[in-house]
Amino acid sequence: MDAIDEPLRAALLGADPSATRRALAKAITLLESTRADHRLRADALLNTLLPDTGHGMRLGISGVPGVGKSTFIETLGLALIAKGHRVAVLAIDPSSSLSGGSILGDKTRMEQLSINEAAYIRPSPASGTLGGVAEKTREAMLVCEAAGFDVVIVETVGVGQSEIAVASMTDLFVLLQLPNAGDDLQAIKKGVMELADLVVINKADLDPLAASRAQAHIVSSLRLFAGHESMPRVLTMSALKNDGFETFWAAVEAFHTRRHASGEFAARRKEQALAWMWDIIQARLQTDFRQHPAVRNALPQTLTDVTASRIAPSVAARSLLNLFER
Amino acid sequence: MDAIDEPLRAALLGADPSATRRALAKAITLLESTRADHRLRADALLNTLLPDTGHGMRLGISGVPGVGKSTFIETLGLALIAKGHRVAVLAIDPSSSLSGGSILGDKTRMEQLSINEAAYIRPSPASGTLGGVAEKTREAMLVCEAAGFDVVIVETVGVGQSEIAVASMTDLFVLLQLPNAGDDLQAIKKGVMELADLVVINKADLDPLAASRAQAHIVSSLRLFAGHESMPRVLTMSALKNDGFETFWAAVEAFHTRRHASGEFAARRKEQALAWMWDIIQARLQTDFRQHPAVRNALPQTLTDVTASRIAPSVAARSLLNLFER
Repeated sequence: MDAIDEPLRAALLGADPSATRRALAKAITLLESTRADHRLRADALLNTLLPDTGHGMRLGISGVPGVGKSTFIETLGLALIAKGHRVAVLAIDPSSSLSGGSILGDKTRMEQLSINEAAYIRPSPASGTLGGVAEKTREAMLVCEAAGFDVVIVETVGVGQSEIAVASMTDLFVLLQLPNAGDDLQAIKKGVMELADLVVINKADLDPLAASRAQAHIVSSLRLFAGHESMPRVLTMSALKNDGFETFWAAVEAFHTRRHASGEFAARRKEQALAWMWDIIQARLQTDFRQHPAVRNALPQTLTDVTASRIAPSVAARSLLNLFER
Repeated sequence: MDAIDEPLRAALLGADPSATRRALAKAITLLESTRADHRLRADALLNTLLPDTGHGMRLGISGVPGVGKSTFIETLGLALIAKGHRVAVLAIDPSSSLSGGSILGDKTRMEQLSINEAAYIRPSPASGTLGGVAEKTREAMLVCEAAGFDVVIVETVGVGQSEIAVASMTDLFVLLQLPNAGDDLQAIKKGVMELADLVVINKADLDPLAASRAQAHIVSSLRLFAGHESMPRVLTMSALKNDGFETFWAAVEAFHTRRHASGEFAARRKEQALAWMWDIIQARLQTDFRQHPAVRNALPQTLTDVTASRIAPSVAARSLLNLFER
């Protein structure tokens, strides 16, 4: 163990909620640093914290902008705190470095939750590829768990590939939907619905009939696309009016209990841990390959030749690999 | 160019159909060989053939066992030959080395097509991972095109990950379905439906009403899951009674024409070529990593530690990478 991090570790695991939240912020900043010495300290910290992680529930939440994610998470978070839980909210938004992000970085959007001592809210890492952002978030999740947060919510926007990343790091993936089954549903990205363990039609108060119709439509479509076992539940609710939360949380707990009993929970956690490790290895091998001087030198011409059908892709691959291995 | 392969190349590109088919079989066997000298000759052959490839249509066809793929392909192939096309049929069935395969290796299942001189049928490579089998099939496809086959059909079974491989190497992916929307549809693997450019409900003669119902159900579900642009067409037909083929082929040609006009065809071909190259590179980097003596030595204990949460996955990844790079 690295002695430098002992005060940080003590504050993280300590009984003072304010000190814990400050230590969390500091630890996650350390994880997100690109400096090599910070990375070493962060790795040492992660290893010492590891025995205190993994006991809580990891909940992924996604939905397009406007679906009401912030209100949903705030209402959910406060309800869970009232039940005695401690709740961390992390965000993955790979667009944040370009656009300022679809998930706002400031805490004003979850006013009550952000000032609650039993909550910790952290915006998406502001730069990096999706892979990099996801890796930091996975590590931040472990630190939050070690600091005693037994429900970690990872939120993302319902566009792009970030849902796959979130589903691959959580125990339960919730997709929020709007009650109108028309244009908005066109926005559903391929495959996202199938990642969901629970589909929640939010803002059902706006048009209860439309919400029921959307529910029936989604159920019937899921029946076609998903196998029996992986069939997600579809609920309606209104986060704004705090209506439907008991049903939602009961469904979450039922999932959790069933997966624990079947062994699926543990199997999934192990699978996720290994997939995470291999993701990092693969990304680094790919980077090393592209940065190898001979490969970097030959790559532009090779890419041109392959797209122009002057060289077969498999032959091009073998010739680049020969350069790399020489 | 390797002089040894000149007779083979001449026979492939020559006017004698029997000699071409024999040369094709020989060339594909060369591609499938694991011997290093064969690999070098195969690469040289591929490079000389490349200018003669890419002009035809690549058609992916999938469906669960029992859906009538063989009858469909035989009827389609004979109809295309009657129109003046030359048709090659390749198969991808990664299960074939274990089970004898869901796609039969013998040619008895397409009796008329297999003896037609304007057709060439090649069973799935009998061993290897899906990645390896797919790579060989991609290369075989190029050789078939060079030999003058202007329609290459790549068929696979409607189970497992092989559909993704086939969709990624063809211009148009057709999913065959049975007319009953009940139990059989439960067998549809997640995401397969969304790979499809065309969904064909085969054996519609068995129960025309059920076929129409299945068609309506699939259309409505696709509307929910797929965006407007990628919305596949859904047709009904009976391959056995040769009913619906004109509509099917008209739909295929309409797709083809539209994609050529929009530039999507060319863009997709380029994307596929680059993805193919990177697939091979990635697979080899991964293999080299796993076979590195220090990594191979440390890996079993590391995997155990990661699954037991004794070491964080990201820390484990970095420590294995350090061993590899030292």
